[in-house]
Amino acid sequence: MTTTEEPVTGSSLIPTLPGSAYVDPAVFDAECERIFEDMWFCAARESDLPKPGSFRTVQVGRESILISRSRRGEVRAFYNVCRHRGARICTEDAGERARSFQCPYHAWTYDFDGKLIAAPNLTKMPDIDRVEYGLRRVHVRTWLGYVWVSLADAPPSFEATVQQEVVDRLGTLDNIAGYDVANLSVGRRIVYDVAANWKLIVENFMECYHCATIHPELTEVLPEFADGLAAQYFVNHGAEFGEDVSGFTIDGSEGFGVIPGLEEDRDRKYYAITVKPQVFVNLVPDHVIFHRMYPMAADRTVVECDWLYLPDVVESGRDVTASVELFHRVNQQDFEACERTQPAMSSKLYAAGGVLVPSEHHISEFHEWVTHKLTPTGG
Amino acid sequence: MTTTEEPVTGSSLIPTLPGSAYVDPAVFDAECERIFEDMWFCAARESDLPKPGSFRTVQVGRESILISRSRRGEVRAFYNVCRHRGARICTEDAGERARSFQCPYHAWTYDFDGKLIAAPNLTKMPDIDRVEYGLRRVHVRTWLGYVWVSLADAPPSFEATVQQEVVDRLGTLDNIAGYDVANLSVGRRIVYDVAANWKLIVENFMECYHCATIHPELTEVLPEFADGLAAQYFVNHGAEFGEDVSGFTIDGSEGFGVIPGLEEDRDRKYYAITVKPQVFVNLVPDHVIFHRMYPMAADRTVVECDWLYLPDVVESGRDVTASVELFHRVNQQDFEACERTQPAMSSKLYAAGGVLVPSEHHISEFHEWVTHKLTPTGG
Amino acid sequence: MTTTEEPVTGSSLIPTLPGSAYVDPAVFDAECERIFEDMWFCAARESDLPKPGSFRTVQVGRESILISRSRRGEVRAFYNVCRHRGARICTEDAGERARSFQCPYHAWTYDFDGKLIAAPNLTKMPDIDRVEYGLRRVHVRTWLGYVWVSLADAPPSFEATVQQEVVDRLGTLDNIAGYDVANLSVGRRIVYDVAANWKLIVENFMECYHCATIHPELTEVLPEFADGLAAQYFVNHGAEFGEDVSGFTIDGSEGFGVIPGLEEDRDRKYYAITVKPQVFVNLVPDHVIFHRMYPMAADRTVVECDWLYLPDVVESGRDVTASVELFHRVNQQDFEACERTQPAMSSKLYAAGGVLVPSEHHISEFHEWVTHKLTPTGG
Repeated sequence: MTTTEEPVTGSSLIPTLPGSAYVDPAVFDAECERIFEDMWFCAARESDLPKPGSFRTVQVGRESILISRSRRGEVRAFYNVCRHRGARICTEDAGERARSFQCPYHAWTYDFDGKLIAAPNLTKMPDIDRVEYGLRRVHVRTWLGYVWVSLADAPPSFEATVQQEVVDRLGTLDNIAGYDVANLSVGRRIVYDVAANWKLIVENFMECYHCATIHPELTEVLPEFADGLAAQYFVNHGAEFGEDVSGFTIDGSEGFGVIPGLEEDRDRKYYAITVKPQVFVNLVPDHVIFHRMYPMAADRTVVECDWLYLPDVVESGRDVTASVELFHRVNQQDFEACERTQPAMSSKLYAAGGVLVPSEHHISEFHEWVTHKLTPTGG
Repeated sequence: MTTTEEPVTGSSLIPTLPGSAYVDPAVFDAECERIFEDMWFCAARESDLPKPGSFRTVQVGRESILISRSRRGEVRAFYNVCRHRGARICTEDAGERARSFQCPYHAWTYDFDGKLIAAPNLTKMPDIDRVEYGLRRVHVRTWLGYVWVSLADAPPSFEATVQQEVVDRLGTLDNIAGYDVANLSVGRRIVYDVAANWKLIVENFMECYHCATIHPELTEVLPEFADGLAAQYFVNHGAEFGEDVSGFTIDGSEGFGVIPGLEEDRDRKYYAITVKPQVFVNLVPDHVIFHRMYPMAADRTVVECDWLYLPDVVESGRDVTASVELFHRVNQQDFEACERTQPAMSSKLYAAGGVLVPSEHHISEFHEWVTHKLTPTGG
Repeated sequence: MTTTEEPVTGSSLIPTLPGSAYVDPAVFDAECERIFEDMWFCAARESDLPKPGSFRTVQVGRESILISRSRRGEVRAFYNVCRHRGARICTEDAGERARSFQCPYHAWTYDFDGKLIAAPNLTKMPDIDRVEYGLRRVHVRTWLGYVWVSLADAPPSFEATVQQEVVDRLGTLDNIAGYDVANLSVGRRIVYDVAANWKLIVENFMECYHCATIHPELTEVLPEFADGLAAQYFVNHGAEFGEDVSGFTIDGSEGFGVIPGLEEDRDRKYYAITVKPQVFVNLVPDHVIFHRMYPMAADRTVVECDWLYLPDVVESGRDVTASVELFHRVNQQDFEACERTQPAMSSKLYAAGGVLVPSEHHISEFHEWVTHKLTPTGG
């Protein structure tokens, strides 16, 4: 649905998903299997892996994935499971290895491409194929400076899924190109541990009917949000800064220089994109806010949020607090609302779900998408 | 069974419920559905709601219930779930709202009768019925100064259930009337979080075979309890204070004045009533001890206990410690015993349950009642 | 398999159990029923029960077992469940009773043979058989100074199970007799709470392929372990101390005097025995290290480890730190490896399990044994 104005006919209220979709561990397992472990999943920032042997470990669906960089600088991702007896190769969230990944249990040793290169008595076991018993690789793509992985044997088209979500929102990929997201630097990263189902967080991000109630700072900067229509209700709609607002900051004070190459008509606008299943992007003239969700359980989601700036802003050590603080408060306000909503998902009063008002009707597409993904023949 | 003397024939031992009844989450779910969410459930003291907009939130079965008072002073109870997207309306245990209940997520606003009175853009959604989309009410009765709720569509008769329990124990309702429980004041409230199934707590309250072992202070005050027969083993039996005992206090010292209007023969007696499924009442000449259980899980029960005194005792700030301390110790002793019993409920040695001795035989009626409630055709 | 040299034909790699065997609560329940609650389970050191009324409570499978000593000094073991209403008789891990076991709830009182000897009003209940309603006893054997219990109605042969495991490893029971394990004294006891399945701990103990990687101190003392073959890979093989090593201590310094009666060729050797399902024994010239596992859940195992010395070593207060520290570090290193392995057991990459290299092939026998025990007709 690419609505450009409010629906005027039909019922104001349409139903949400049933409450069980947000609490049932079996639903969460199915979502892991058919969504997070099957689609492209945005797992890490490329700059988290500055050189060969740098690594991050992240939770993708129910799996621990080890992301690193090969000797030739290519990003690689592996199941974080030793092929011998299953020990975790790396238990830290992030780190660096000098030469190889060595399992700390029996010293099975893998190069940065995952190949098994050494193990005690390995030479006496000539029938062990060093690629077959190498770390099991998963598919990797990089885009916008992020590493996206897919645990599927045959991943879906990156273009038809991840990139199409941006096209659906902004009209064309060109409309994000000007932000040069891949070359921005991480000025701040905040990790939130949210006691709520990931779908509540997606739904929250998709609508602005709550903005007037819980986001006083945001609606100050973006006055049209007080009316309740999210930027992403429309195609390629940028919410305009308020008249007295100089920048996308907690107090409306000036930000940093506009990202070079950005079309002029974007220099006072805010855009928001949901890239299903677990990424939210906010574009403003001088920075980009990039959220990745890591769903951990039916009632728990970790959200890692990066504030990305022009490299010279970060390198020069300029104070990014005024802009970080704005969306950090928005995040806190949103996640508190989601945590307040989670407990009622198991109420019998919510067994058939709640309702969406017109400015939320587009969330219904998300619900249909989830339902379709979980339908055995739906894929 | 309204026994007035010990059975002298038949077996001394009759079986309890099987151990699984105390640990199986499926049994607990069934109890929530067919007992706590279906019967009358004593949820709050009326005086917890001093004026319109005062509220308490409590757990009734698996549901959070919001109890409040309307503009006209009537007690109302609602599912604590916003009709829009399910957020909890109130998250505090108790509090006060000046004008309405407003959901903090999207500002759907309900009056104290539950009617939807405002929401962003509500006027543009004329098809929303403000009563249908009001807070969902549950049935309310007040008696003895307490608010009793029923989540059933068609609640059982209050008279034939709650009040009949009192009749079964005391003979007539008149026999509780003299205590004027509704007009007493809360002198002390203590909340206990007990790691035991609610039925263990009921069984404990029903029998006094344990009194000599674990309640030295209580048997000092009520010597006949040392023989093991609970007051509620009989109809309208009051346990007599010991000769040297002046009042129902930790040291037998004098209490406060006898509640006016009480029959004279009750001025040195203790009565106990179990109002299934979750209320215990103790009546003594100068105060009333009123327990409400909130079953939280198969192995966890919150007990809220009020010590009620004549209003002038509380208003004048007289020290109620000596009387509170007596039953507070009894509670601690009892709940420790229940917590010690809970772990063995899953032993294979307890698969078929334990045994009831003659002075506990009346607990069997409780077991039959529970079993009957959980039998699909039992109602 | 009683291999004396490495296999030279066939595949180097054979599969382990599937990952689900280490995480599925239903598998753990089946293991409790068919292994821990059915076989002989090593529960306590006899010296933990110095006199009549001394007791220990331990977890055997899913049951709490109370182990004590009768008036005549015989070891007795009971379900730790009162026959009346199921309260735990003793809640402490260890203690002492002067005259009887009295349930603290209703004072049902049992003698140290478990017979019901007193209860309130017991004389008025003549139909209660005091043996039938005594504490339910479980089978007991003592060997090597330890109390072994079986919860089975008809326990397996102690000789054909527990003792045969020692024969399988050492060739004959005579080969353990010289250590006089029953008469050694506990010099140190350390309890470990390990977040791993019990089978990972057994597998770890059975192989030494990991020794070079994680046990630097151990391989310093026993240089052949650096090659990866565990002592228990062979029958009656003792790993020889290194040339510069004087004793089985953290720094190779001298230990205490050799246990009298030990064959001379054992005075610089280390032996290791796995007694399925939950005991590990290490024999060195001057002490014995005895591990008992208490499996608590699919992902949690408590390990109690005793360092046993000649009585005069302990009585004289000699410092046992140098020898305790060596295997304590080994334990810490091993349990950390097991905890690192547990999380991947639920990975889809480990659904079919991992692989065993030749020096681990004998673990496959353990896997076959477990599988056989859990096969309904397997017994």
